[in-house]
Amino acid sequence: MTAPFAFDLLATDGRARRGTITTPHGVVRTPAFMPVGTQGTVKAMFMDDVRATGADVVLGNTYHLMLRPTAERVAKLGGLHRFANWPHTILTDSGGFQVMSLAQIRKLTEQGVTFQSHIDGSKHEMSPERSIEIQGLLGSDIQMQLDECLRLPASRAEIDRAMRLSLRWAARSRQKFEAMGGPGLGQGLYGIVQGGDDADLRATSARELSAMPFEGYSVGGLAVGEPQAVMLAMLDIVCPLLPEAKPRYLMGVGTPDDIVESVARGIDQFDCVMPTRAGRHGLAYTRFGKINLKNARHADDPRPLDESSDCPALRDYSRAYLHHLVRTGEALGAMLLTWANVAYYQSLMLGIRDAIEARRYADFVAETKAGWARGDLAPIG
Amino acid sequence: MTAPFAFDLLATDGRARRGTITTPHGVVRTPAFMPVGTQGTVKAMFMDDVRATGADVVLGNTYHLMLRPTAERVAKLGGLHRFANWPHTILTDSGGFQVMSLAQIRKLTEQGVTFQSHIDGSKHEMSPERSIEIQGLLGSDIQMQLDECLRLPASRAEIDRAMRLSLRWAARSRQKFEAMGGPGLGQGLYGIVQGGDDADLRATSARELSAMPFEGYSVGGLAVGEPQAVMLAMLDIVCPLLPEAKPRYLMGVGTPDDIVESVARGIDQFDCVMPTRAGRHGLAYTRFGKINLKNARHADDPRPLDESSDCPALRDYSRAYLHHLVRTGEALGAMLLTWANVAYYQSLMLGIRDAIEARRYADFVAETKAGWARGDLAPIG
Repeated sequence: MTAPFAFDLLATDGRARRGTITTPHGVVRTPAFMPVGTQGTVKAMFMDDVRATGADVVLGNTYHLMLRPTAERVAKLGGLHRFANWPHTILTDSGGFQVMSLAQIRKLTEQGVTFQSHIDGSKHEMSPERSIEIQGLLGSDIQMQLDECLRLPASRAEIDRAMRLSLRWAARSRQKFEAMGGPGLGQGLYGIVQGGDDADLRATSARELSAMPFEGYSVGGLAVGEPQAVMLAMLDIVCPLLPEAKPRYLMGVGTPDDIVESVARGIDQFDCVMPTRAGRHGLAYTRFGKINLKNARHADDPRPLDESSDCPALRDYSRAYLHHLVRTGEALGAMLLTWANVAYYQSLMLGIRDAIEARRYADFVAETKAGWARGDLAPIG
Repeated sequence: MTAPFAFDLLATDGRARRGTITTPHGVVRTPAFMPVGTQGTVKAMFMDDVRATGADVVLGNTYHLMLRPTAERVAKLGGLHRFANWPHTILTDSGGFQVMSLAQIRKLTEQGVTFQSHIDGSKHEMSPERSIEIQGLLGSDIQMQLDECLRLPASRAEIDRAMRLSLRWAARSRQKFEAMGGPGLGQGLYGIVQGGDDADLRATSARELSAMPFEGYSVGGLAVGEPQAVMLAMLDIVCPLLPEAKPRYLMGVGTPDDIVESVARGIDQFDCVMPTRAGRHGLAYTRFGKINLKNARHADDPRPLDESSDCPALRDYSRAYLHHLVRTGEALGAMLLTWANVAYYQSLMLGIRDAIEARRYADFVAETKAGWARGDLAPIG
């Protein structure tokens, strides 16, 4: 028998929380950062290396996977864990965000969305039920309800309408998830708080969702271009309204600074393409802040990005070599910097978790920010 | 004190030779295939993985490295071995081939070549002496003389002229190599046999070079589009004229079939972009022959490329997943297939070496070719 989906709160420090999520594929230490594996691969990384950085969970994108290779094919091949050689926890989004950002939408109705693939123009239907069906076929451990992701800015009336539609879709998603047997499989379904940058609508969304029996709660529609202060203000409103005993996932966030600030407000899970995308563009996130390896200052620098790291990508390759790889467009540059960034993000999460356990989170944040503010090593003589 | 460059012939079977080359950075088991690390990286692979496939030596391209990051910079950073995190043997070409194929040549004279970089149009000079100087700055263990690489077809008079110029450049290269202290450092310099597809000119080149004191001999200007039979006919002429006690390197070759046939004619070293380039284009070289992972027949196939391999890339990833990665253009597809191809080439060389030791090389070739001819696994029911 499969153990039920569980969240255990192990320690708190202020509103920051240290816990574990137990899924059919392992234990996720929270606060957790989930590297993005859009199409069943964390771009330019081997899954063994992703795991070795300390990641307990990766994210898969329902929209991309439903188009290629299709959820039915992944199911026939034994599910996404086996397909992608990742035997640990997988979280999937609902597909809604990419349907609304990448595809050409044909029609949005109460029932769902009709859209055309951005790849070949083929027509597809997405509904709350179909999204859960796909996530079930993929074998996702942590699933998301379909929601309507508005493009901002939008009027209050529009935000209100989309938020209420998302609530109705939440209920339908839950029903389908239970019909699929998700709870019995130990899987979890998260409801998604919407409401744009409107405090009242955010509060309404959080309250209504909290009354429904989800295994966790996501905060969606943030980090879409608004100032960080707005995002944090929304978290200040939303987090206290969400059930203490359930994990909270801030979708699509963010910079290291966004993460430490959001943890301080009670967020437990994060995902973002930033570390992987930046790695493909010659940028490294480190304890010295953000480093642009394209910069000529690195051309003659024999020092690694961070000699104190235990990640080979940060420790064993000179800045001069990384600079050369980035400048010449070599694949190894993207491979090493992606790896370095995922490793830094995971080491940040480890530090966050340890600090909460030790009830010194505020000090940890101050020290970490001081490190970023000091900036990179001085150039070599 | 550094041990001198050495070649030890351990066994022969017909004209096939099993030996070892000892350089300042290790022992190279021959026949050897040398993965191409053009710009200080074997494209899309970690050097640790290159090593783990069984490679004892990689090739670096003088032309590319002299332009970026420059030989002087590499030298200041401790040499190419340290720069590229490859502490084992490195062979470099002279730069001549790329000067004549990639760059815009301004002038070819007795003295050398003036050319413009294909990257930024900057003007550079290359001479036999400068090529050796660069290879010395890189710290190359096995260096090549500068030669003139003709574009074929060319008249006999042109081939003759270029071959004789290359002989004079061989002598100047040797002089510079000794002035740089190469022999005392345990490094080796190879002369390059030219002569196009002309048996007499090939023989002349081989005889004249054999009279000069090189640590090894390369055969250049083959596998440039001529039928395999022409290439093998040239080897039948050239190899018997080269010193028995020195290694022989067939430059830029080739397919697995080219390799087994050339070993049978007395060749000890090979390099080729084929396994790495094919890996970036969705093609796998395996004991079942060449497999095109783009082909839809793999879309639902849960089997790995070769379950009997001890290379993770060949053994641990389904064809369906590889197909998906290739079709979606994911970097991991190129990473895995490059790795698989380099691993297959190295396992082929291991089989070749074992077969020569066991004096069953002809049987090994017949078995290996039968495997390729049988082709890929039957599609799954």
